[in-house]
Amino acid sequence: MLDYANRLKNARIRMAESNIGLIFLTVGANLSFLTGFRRSEPHSTDVNTYGDWAVGGFLGVEGGIVLTAPRMDSKSYIARAQDKPWFDSARVIVESEDPLDVMRQILARFDLRGKKIALDDHAWAATVLAFRRLLPETEFVLASDILAPLRMIKGEAELSLMRRAGAITDAVFQKALARLKPGVTELDIKTEIDYQFRRMGAEYNSFVTGISFAKPGDDLGGSPKKLAPGCSITFDLGCVVEGYCSDFGRSAFMGEPPAEYVKIHELVLRAQREAMQAMKAGQGTGEQANAIARSIIEAEGYGPYFTHRLGHGIGVTVHESPYLDQGQRTVLRVGMTFTVEPSIYIPNGFGNRVEDVVVVTEHGAESLYTTDHRLYMIE
Amino acid sequence: MLDYANRLKNARIRMAESNIGLIFLTVGANLSFLTGFRRSEPHSTDVNTYGDWAVGGFLGVEGGIVLTAPRMDSKSYIARAQDKPWFDSARVIVESEDPLDVMRQILARFDLRGKKIALDDHAWAATVLAFRRLLPETEFVLASDILAPLRMIKGEAELSLMRRAGAITDAVFQKALARLKPGVTELDIKTEIDYQFRRMGAEYNSFVTGISFAKPGDDLGGSPKKLAPGCSITFDLGCVVEGYCSDFGRSAFMGEPPAEYVKIHELVLRAQREAMQAMKAGQGTGEQANAIARSIIEAEGYGPYFTHRLGHGIGVTVHESPYLDQGQRTVLRVGMTFTVEPSIYIPNGFGNRVEDVVVVTEHGAESLYTTDHRLYMIE
Repeated sequence: MLDYANRLKNARIRMAESNIGLIFLTVGANLSFLTGFRRSEPHSTDVNTYGDWAVGGFLGVEGGIVLTAPRMDSKSYIARAQDKPWFDSARVIVESEDPLDVMRQILARFDLRGKKIALDDHAWAATVLAFRRLLPETEFVLASDILAPLRMIKGEAELSLMRRAGAITDAVFQKALARLKPGVTELDIKTEIDYQFRRMGAEYNSFVTGISFAKPGDDLGGSPKKLAPGCSITFDLGCVVEGYCSDFGRSAFMGEPPAEYVKIHELVLRAQREAMQAMKAGQGTGEQANAIARSIIEAEGYGPYFTHRLGHGIGVTVHESPYLDQGQRTVLRVGMTFTVEPSIYIPNGFGNRVEDVVVVTEHGAESLYTTDHRLYMIE
Repeated sequence: MLDYANRLKNARIRMAESNIGLIFLTVGANLSFLTGFRRSEPHSTDVNTYGDWAVGGFLGVEGGIVLTAPRMDSKSYIARAQDKPWFDSARVIVESEDPLDVMRQILARFDLRGKKIALDDHAWAATVLAFRRLLPETEFVLASDILAPLRMIKGEAELSLMRRAGAITDAVFQKALARLKPGVTELDIKTEIDYQFRRMGAEYNSFVTGISFAKPGDDLGGSPKKLAPGCSITFDLGCVVEGYCSDFGRSAFMGEPPAEYVKIHELVLRAQREAMQAMKAGQGTGEQANAIARSIIEAEGYGPYFTHRLGHGIGVTVHESPYLDQGQRTVLRVGMTFTVEPSIYIPNGFGNRVEDVVVVTEHGAESLYTTDHRLYMIE
């Protein structure tokens, strides 16, 4: 069981240390982490519900968290909050009142004299300007200053959920492999993956599924591309299970791969393996792991085609601090989780990637997946 | 062709009227409307790219729009901007620099003395606090004050794109109908719809597809529900074509519908039809249209089951002002587009809805779809 009472206690200790009287959280990663109140799958364009900019959780240094809810979705908000005793009952914002008045009433419940307010980093400008209108003298800071450190080390209950997200991802990858035939499109495979995630019990994707077919000098039928012999196939997929994310990558090839592609695959695997071995708690850093993987790929001349950082923290959101990247000098600790995802994408040529979510141990990083790292050969 | 030069000119006229020296826009609806630079399908959890809070468009009262881009996505940003002469070249934020310094350099290009800055309503708190740190004396307002009025009336080029989004939606609905068989799940139908949208050339959904099977006193096999004889089926779907949205609803029934359900369907249709007839340019208001539909449904005793507003404006985002709702007294004008979507959802019972996107004319509202409004009978 995730220990929300303990998380709230730790957040409040940090609030007191930083003289913060209130944290305002949108319905996102931070609220999910602190309270278990989970976001829904996002709409692709803005839905602009009445008073939406005043919706979120208001966490003071003591007492229940005040949750505001849009009337149109209020049943779902109330249902999600009611089994969580750390919430007060939800305050529904109705069309006949001004959301600014609702916010004023809520702020009056907290003693904010001489205190700062921490705002979710992704709270909207409309929300920030409303806070400033109501409390023009107050200093505002970002909630990540308080909460990001609490999210970095994963406990057993969190790792267990991340392994469940990983097990679903392992299984979904097999379903996707089984669909690879000449003529299928990138969209066909993406659709199968997104469908199977939900069918197998994930809440939704952790990010937009990336399927890429590539063949030098061949446009593969435009967009979406069609699979043909001689194509490399790269997979980037992940899902959310009880608020925790997976993120996963493998590579496949249709037909007989050229020797150079096999070499690239082995190089990517070696970069991943050696970086993971170096990710020892108390010793390695994100910067070191990134440098190890990069130097292996650079030594063979593929440096310009490994264009992104080696990896990122992962938990209640798919990318979170710390990162496996230059400048990341935080010493790794037991229970930190990262993706390790070297890749080589040659412009107008083949692509190859491999990605695991790993947990840091004293002996290096261990994958949360069971899927073999081999190059998958498709007939 | 959408006339971006004219839109920018009109925005700048309004900036001058309101003493606004700069508008900062995130990669969302407003930037898409003003410049044609379109957002991508959103990830379901946060991707936290380096410097992402400093990414967006900076529009001054003259000169090119400055676009900042995250390094990891910079190719896509540059490609999307390069055919649009109203942008300066994109300023890529790299990991070796502080994004706050990038923002400082950009702000120095504009003459902001004594001027206000308008922020996208959905700009992040992290962005707002950075602006305030760099310009502590500046007054900040919301970009919607300037831009929402410009988005309300749709021209022929916009209506043409909305009709294309509507035509794809009409065709996708037929594909979905063809998949309705006993035993299929809500997820199966949702997956088919989302797949067909992309297959037929939409960019992505305009919102999360809503498919609901309902049968009094029957739980239909848990989640996702399975279709069975005696079920009502409601559809809510929409897509985006070249930045413009559709939003569409119809109802179906598997097997012989009870007399009450047929009556409910006819009632919902009549509420929609009479509201649309009243939506005459220069005469009707959103409040009136809402009241007409509601009174028809209330007169038959179903008022408590029509729980949402009658409709919403729609354009570069799925829900935008004005609305068909209480308190909406803006007189309707030729070229305004709305959804008209009465519904009756009986708790633990049947559901029925119908929804069209309509354009206001002098003679009432006209649907942008061709799909018949009948109750679809499924064997």
